[in-house]
Amino acid sequence: MWLRTSCDLAFDITVPAPFVLMLRPRSGAQQWIEREEYRIVPSVSVFEFTDNYGNLCQRLTAPPGEFSVHTSAEVRTADFVDQGFGAPFVEIQNLPDAVLSYLLPSRYCESDRFCQMATEITAGQQLGYDQVVAIVTWLRNNIHFSPGSSDTPVSAVEINSSQVGVCRDFAHLGIALCRSLSIPARMVVGYLYGLEPIDLHAWFEAYVGGRWYTFDATQAELKGGYVAVGYGRDAADVAVYNQFGPVVNPTAQSVSVERIRD
Amino acid sequence: MWLRTSCDLAFDITVPAPFVLMLRPRSGAQQWIEREEYRIVPSVSVFEFTDNYGNLCQRLTAPPGEFSVHTSAEVRTADFVDQGFGAPFVEIQNLPDAVLSYLLPSRYCESDRFCQMATEITAGQQLGYDQVVAIVTWLRNNIHFSPGSSDTPVSAVEINSSQVGVCRDFAHLGIALCRSLSIPARMVVGYLYGLEPIDLHAWFEAYVGGRWYTFDATQAELKGGYVAVGYGRDAADVAVYNQFGPVVNPTAQSVSVERIRD
Amino acid sequence: MWLRTSCDLAFDITVPAPFVLMLRPRSGAQQWIEREEYRIVPSVSVFEFTDNYGNLCQRLTAPPGEFSVHTSAEVRTADFVDQGFGAPFVEIQNLPDAVLSYLLPSRYCESDRFCQMATEITAGQQLGYDQVVAIVTWLRNNIHFSPGSSDTPVSAVEINSSQVGVCRDFAHLGIALCRSLSIPARMVVGYLYGLEPIDLHAWFEAYVGGRWYTFDATQAELKGGYVAVGYGRDAADVAVYNQFGPVVNPTAQSVSVERIRD
Amino acid sequence: MWLRTSCDLAFDITVPAPFVLMLRPRSGAQQWIEREEYRIVPSVSVFEFTDNYGNLCQRLTAPPGEFSVHTSAEVRTADFVDQGFGAPFVEIQNLPDAVLSYLLPSRYCESDRFCQMATEITAGQQLGYDQVVAIVTWLRNNIHFSPGSSDTPVSAVEINSSQVGVCRDFAHLGIALCRSLSIPARMVVGYLYGLEPIDLHAWFEAYVGGRWYTFDATQAELKGGYVAVGYGRDAADVAVYNQFGPVVNPTAQSVSVERIRD
Repeated sequence: MWLRTSCDLAFDITVPAPFVLMLRPRSGAQQWIEREEYRIVPSVSVFEFTDNYGNLCQRLTAPPGEFSVHTSAEVRTADFVDQGFGAPFVEIQNLPDAVLSYLLPSRYCESDRFCQMATEITAGQQLGYDQVVAIVTWLRNNIHFSPGSSDTPVSAVEINSSQVGVCRDFAHLGIALCRSLSIPARMVVGYLYGLEPIDLHAWFEAYVGGRWYTFDATQAELKGGYVAVGYGRDAADVAVYNQFGPVVNPTAQSVSVERIRD
Repeated sequence: MWLRTSCDLAFDITVPAPFVLMLRPRSGAQQWIEREEYRIVPSVSVFEFTDNYGNLCQRLTAPPGEFSVHTSAEVRTADFVDQGFGAPFVEIQNLPDAVLSYLLPSRYCESDRFCQMATEITAGQQLGYDQVVAIVTWLRNNIHFSPGSSDTPVSAVEINSSQVGVCRDFAHLGIALCRSLSIPARMVVGYLYGLEPIDLHAWFEAYVGGRWYTFDATQAELKGGYVAVGYGRDAADVAVYNQFGPVVNPTAQSVSVERIRD
Repeated sequence: MWLRTSCDLAFDITVPAPFVLMLRPRSGAQQWIEREEYRIVPSVSVFEFTDNYGNLCQRLTAPPGEFSVHTSAEVRTADFVDQGFGAPFVEIQNLPDAVLSYLLPSRYCESDRFCQMATEITAGQQLGYDQVVAIVTWLRNNIHFSPGSSDTPVSAVEINSSQVGVCRDFAHLGIALCRSLSIPARMVVGYLYGLEPIDLHAWFEAYVGGRWYTFDATQAELKGGYVAVGYGRDAADVAVYNQFGPVVNPTAQSVSVERIRD
Repeated sequence: MWLRTSCDLAFDITVPAPFVLMLRPRSGAQQWIEREEYRIVPSVSVFEFTDNYGNLCQRLTAPPGEFSVHTSAEVRTADFVDQGFGAPFVEIQNLPDAVLSYLLPSRYCESDRFCQMATEITAGQQLGYDQVVAIVTWLRNNIHFSPGSSDTPVSAVEINSSQVGVCRDFAHLGIALCRSLSIPARMVVGYLYGLEPIDLHAWFEAYVGGRWYTFDATQAELKGGYVAVGYGRDAADVAVYNQFGPVVNPTAQSVSVERIRD
C-alpha cells in the first residue's frame, strides 16, 4: 500500500539549542520512499550523517524564536507483514557479525535481568519465532497498554514492575526478553497506518530464521502499513529528536498517516 | 540559492536487467534536500544501501518492457563556492584516515604516471590550493572542451594524449595531477545551475587547508549552484547508473536545473 | 614505557559454548603492539571481526572439555597520561559525528537520571576538563572502592545508591555524570601497570578540548602505563568475553602486567 | 598447517618520509594469527587504522637515517584451498551490498575493456566457478610468468599486450576478466608457503556460489599454505607500503615462509 506520513514539530527556543533529528525515513527492502519533504523554519545550516545503525541523522542548532520542523513522505510499504511461524533460532555462531550487538543489554532493555522470566514465558515453545510469539502474547496479557502513561522512556525492568506502558515500553520489554534468550532484537520507530490515536509508533524486530521479523505487542493482529524511520538497540538510539542543553519541550507535535493508494 | 533539479531516464528492456542507480542526492554540509521525488515505473522492489563513499545507491532489476526512472529534488545550495587561495598543502601524516584513499591511483586517474608533468605545471606555486588552481588553469588552456566527445569514460592518460574531452575527462585529469602531488582529490557527479547545454555534470574536489574545496576546469569562473549527487575516486565509483548483463542504452535521458528562489 | 601484559582464561565446558572474545589490543595513537600472542586450546575455528567501536572481536564455539585462552602482548605505552586542565567543553554542534553516540545513555550509564547531581558536583567549574576533574574527585570522596564488591555489572544508578564499587563501577558513574552534562564519555577496558591487586582494569575517557582524555577515579594520581583492549559505551559493549547459552564460569583467570623496558 | 612468515624492509631516509604500511595480517575465517611481531626501528609514533577493505594500516613518518620494519607471524592456515567446481554464478541482484564494488573497473583492472575476450575464453563453460577456472587456465597458457619482469604495477590491458608478467599481473588480468563477466573479483597480497623464489605473493579471489574462492594462475596446482595480509580492488589498494614524497627505494627487503608444524 501507499501511505503519506507526516510529522511536524514546533519549539519555542530561548537559547541556541543543538538538535540531532532522526526524521528522514530510508528506502530499503521493506519500504520505498517515493516523495519526501523536509522543511526547517527558519532555514538553518543542517549537517546530515549516517549513524552506527544506518539511520540518517540531521544536526542543527535551532536559533532563538519559533522553530519548526515539517516532514512528510509518500511511501510504498507492504500490505502484510511477513510472519514466520516455526522459523528457527539462529545459533550464535551463525549470526552475521552485524547482528551480534543486538544480543547485548542496552539502556532500556536490561536483558541480563530477564533470563528466568523469559524461559518461563516461552516454556514448551519451539526455539525461534514461536518463542517471540509467546513473548508478544505474554506482553498483551500482562502489560496494560496506556497511551500517555510514560513521558520519558522507562526501562524494561521498570515496565515489568509497573505493568503499564506505551508502545515504546512494550517494545523495550519484548526486546529484553528476546535478548535474554539469545535472540537478537532491535527497536524500530516510525509510523503505523490505522494506529489510534495517531502518533509516532514504536515496535520491535527479532532475528530468527536468518532474517529480521516484525513484532508489535500493541496490536491485536499484525497488519501491514508500517513505515520505519529509525532502528537501534532501544529508544536511546532512536529518538526522533535529541536536544542538548536546557530542555526545550515541543509546543506542538502532530503526526498523520493516510493511505493514498493501494 | 534554491534549485529544482531533475533527471529522467528511460530504457527499453528485453531481458531482466540488474541496475545500481545513484540518483538520490544526500543532504550534507554543502546542500540541503528539502523535497525529493524518486519514481520508478513500473514499480519494482528496490533495495537501497550506502556505499564506501557515503552515497545512497538503489538496487533493482528492471523487468522487460519500458522502464523509466524519474527523480527530482528541491535543494538549497551555496550562492558562492568557497575558494581558499593560499590554503596550505596538508602533510600526509596530518590527513584524516578517511581521506588517504583519495591519494591512490584509480581506474581513470592514473596518478602514478603524472608526477613530472604535475610538478612542471605547478612550478613556482605555493603548495596547496594554489597548485590546484594552476592545474585548473592548465586544463583550461590545454584541453579542448568538447561536449559529446567521449561516450564511455576514458582515462587521464588518454585525455592527456587526445587533448579533448568532456566534463568528466577534465575532472579525471585534474584529479590525477593533484594526486601525483600528494594532494587528495575526488570526483563529484551532480548538477550545475546554468550549465550549457544542460546535462549531468562532473567536477572535482581537492583536500587542502584541512577541508575539501570545489574545482571545475570546465567553467571560466567558479560560481555557485552545484548540487552533488555522488562522490568517489573517479567515474568508476560514481556512475549515475551501472547496468549489468547485456548492455541496455537509455532511450531517453533528460536533465533540468532551474532556480526556484533565492 | 614498554609493558608485557597477559590475560589467561580457562573454562570447563559441558555443552558447546559460543563465545565472543575481546582480548586483542589494537595499535593506535596511544599504544603500539610490538609483539602479541593469542593461543586457544584446543585449537578451534575463530572468526575475527571489527565491531562498531573499532574493537577486534573473536568469535568461536568452545567444545566440551577444558578450554583455555592465553593472550599476551608487548606494548609501548605513554609514560605519562596527557592531562588537559582548562580544556574547554566542545559545543554539541562542533563534535565529530562519530562522537555523538557517546552522549547517549547506555545500559549501565543512565545519564538521563543524573542532570541535577552532575550540575551540583561541578558547580563553579570551568566547562570542560575541569568539570570532569570535579566528577573524579567527587567519586574518590564518595564512592568506596572495594575490589570484588560486584561480580556482575551494576549500573550508575545502583552504584550511586550503594556508594561502593569496583573500577568498572567508578567508570560507569563517571561516564553517566559526564554525559548528563553533554560531555561525551566512553568506557575503556584494559591493563594498568602497577595496579594492586593486579587484574583487568576499567577506566573512562571524556571528550573535551577536541580530543579524548583519560580519567581514572580509582587512582589517587593519574600515572602512565595504561594499555587499552576495548572501547565502548559501557561494560555491555566491552566485555572481555561474552558467552552465550547456559552460563559457564571461568575455572581460572590470571592477569599480569610487567615492565620490560623504558 | 602452521607457518611462520616474515617480511623485513629497510630504507635509507634522507628527508622525513610519510608511510602507510599494510603488514599486519588479520585473523579471519581462513587463518588465525597466533603470534605476531611488528618492530619498527627507530621507534616512532605509529597510528593504526582500518581501511575500506578491512585491512589494518599503519601510518608513520620515517625519520632521516636508517629505517627498518620487521614483521613476523605464526599463522594457522588451511592445508587445502577450497575448490568449488560447478559453484554457480551469483545473479547481481543477489550479491551482498559489500561485494558490489568488486564488479567495478579499477586502476589496474580495466574490466570495461575485456568483455569480448572474457566471453571467448569462457565459451562453453557453466556460469560461475568454471568460468574462472577457464580464465586461470587461459592465463597459464598465454601469459609468460617472469619474476622481476615488472617493477612498478602495470595494468591488465598492458599485461594482455605484453603477455609477460609477475604474480601481481596475473592477478590483475584474472580480476579484469572476471569482472567483465559480472563476477566480483578482488586482489589478495600475502605469503605462499613453498613459493619459489620466495617473495611476497599476490593472487585473487572470485565471488561465486555465495562465497569468495581463491585462484592463483601462477601455480600449476592450487595447494594450501596461503596467508593473506591485504585485500583490495587491485594493487593500488593493497600496497605493502605506500610512501609519499620523494621516492625512497628499499635498501633491503627479505621475506620468509617456513612450516613450523602441521
